Amino acid sequence: MQNDVIEKLIEQFRSLPGVGYKTAQRYAFSIIEGKAERAKRFAEAITEAKSKIGFCKVCGNFTDQDVCNICRTRNRKIVCVVKEPKDILSMEKVKTYNGVYHVLFGTISPLEHRGPDDIKIKELLARISSDGVEEVIMATNPDVEGDATAMYIAKLLRPLGVKVTRIAQGVSMGSDLEYADEVTLSKALEDRRQI
Amino acid sequence: MQNDVIEKLIEQFRSLPGVGYKTAQRYAFSIIEGKAERAKRFAEAITEAKSKIGFCKVCGNFTDQDVCNICRTRNRKIVCVVKEPKDILSMEKVKTYNGVYHVLFGTISPLEHRGPDDIKIKELLARISSDGVEEVIMATNPDVEGDATAMYIAKLLRPLGVKVTRIAQGVSMGSDLEYADEVTLSKALEDRRQI
Repeated sequence: MQNDVIEKLIEQFRSLPGVGYKTAQRYAFSIIEGKAERAKRFAEAITEAKSKIGFCKVCGNFTDQDVCNICRTRNRKIVCVVKEPKDILSMEKVKTYNGVYHVLFGTISPLEHRGPDDIKIKELLARISSDGVEEVIMATNPDVEGDATAMYIAKLLRPLGVKVTRIAQGVSMGSDLEYADEVTLSKALEDRRQI
Repeated sequence: MQNDVIEKLIEQFRSLPGVGYKTAQRYAFSIIEGKAERAKRFAEAITEAKSKIGFCKVCGNFTDQDVCNICRTRNRKIVCVVKEPKDILSMEKVKTYNGVYHVLFGTISPLEHRGPDDIKIKELLARISSDGVEEVIMATNPDVEGDATAMYIAKLLRPLGVKVTRIAQGVSMGSDLEYADEVTLSKALEDRRQI
């Protein structure tokens, strides 16, 4: 006896990541019970974001212009390489970083049949010479694919005389050793620094 | 350095019940990274639901017509009284119920300055005689306000010769006595039945 129109809205909310039927239903009712003006703004925000937001043609970041704000205003001699556009947001929380980014749009993954040519490595190499890059920071995820991709790119970049670094892996700040997994702990031990 | 257009979409998702910034951001990226066709359908579903869905003029259920499906096809002699339109959905999971509903749009709440005249009690009384109602099932929430509202309405209906019942309160099916709260347990004991 559920209404078709409501069902259609619930289905749309269900397509969001991690949303099940009950949650989608709650979201849908919140729209239906809310003001008409709010539903209008919501629909417009979706349409506008999808139509206006594209990728920066230099780094791959989300932007509503040709070249994103970061590429236009920052030091282009340091490039931080990430897997996805949204990783830039996470990195940007580190307010002290003043370099630019490069989005790979994926990592090398033999299991998913994704090789070096399927991600934006060529584009990174092209930027190295054209921008006079001095350091490339590999900030792909600290997992098997992220590590392998970082190593692969480092090998390509070294002959070009560019300094290649990898973000440090170790125990999280504020965490408890008791709950750290052994791979992380062994990495933290291996990369220990003199103080 | 977050984009205004993206920020606007995140803000809309944040307005949904129980959604914080991180989750809203995840939803927004899912729209931006998704197909244009999906964003279009999503925006349309919101607009359509808000513009087409109103309340059934008989019972208060959500509907895109004047009178909802339930009111048009079911036995009008049994009325189940609920607090909100979405409660009808929960009750409808009980496939055996063949009666109709009445939405109060709230419960009596002195704390929130909501008296009997602020909810749809008059409308319920009017239906009693016009539809020849034989039984009214009070299915307001099993909390203080829901109970008080049920009692208040029962007192009004009894003189009209209508049978008034209240949904049973007790321990949930499949639950564990160990985790039942004492109010629920005492209610379950009080309303015990011979077997």
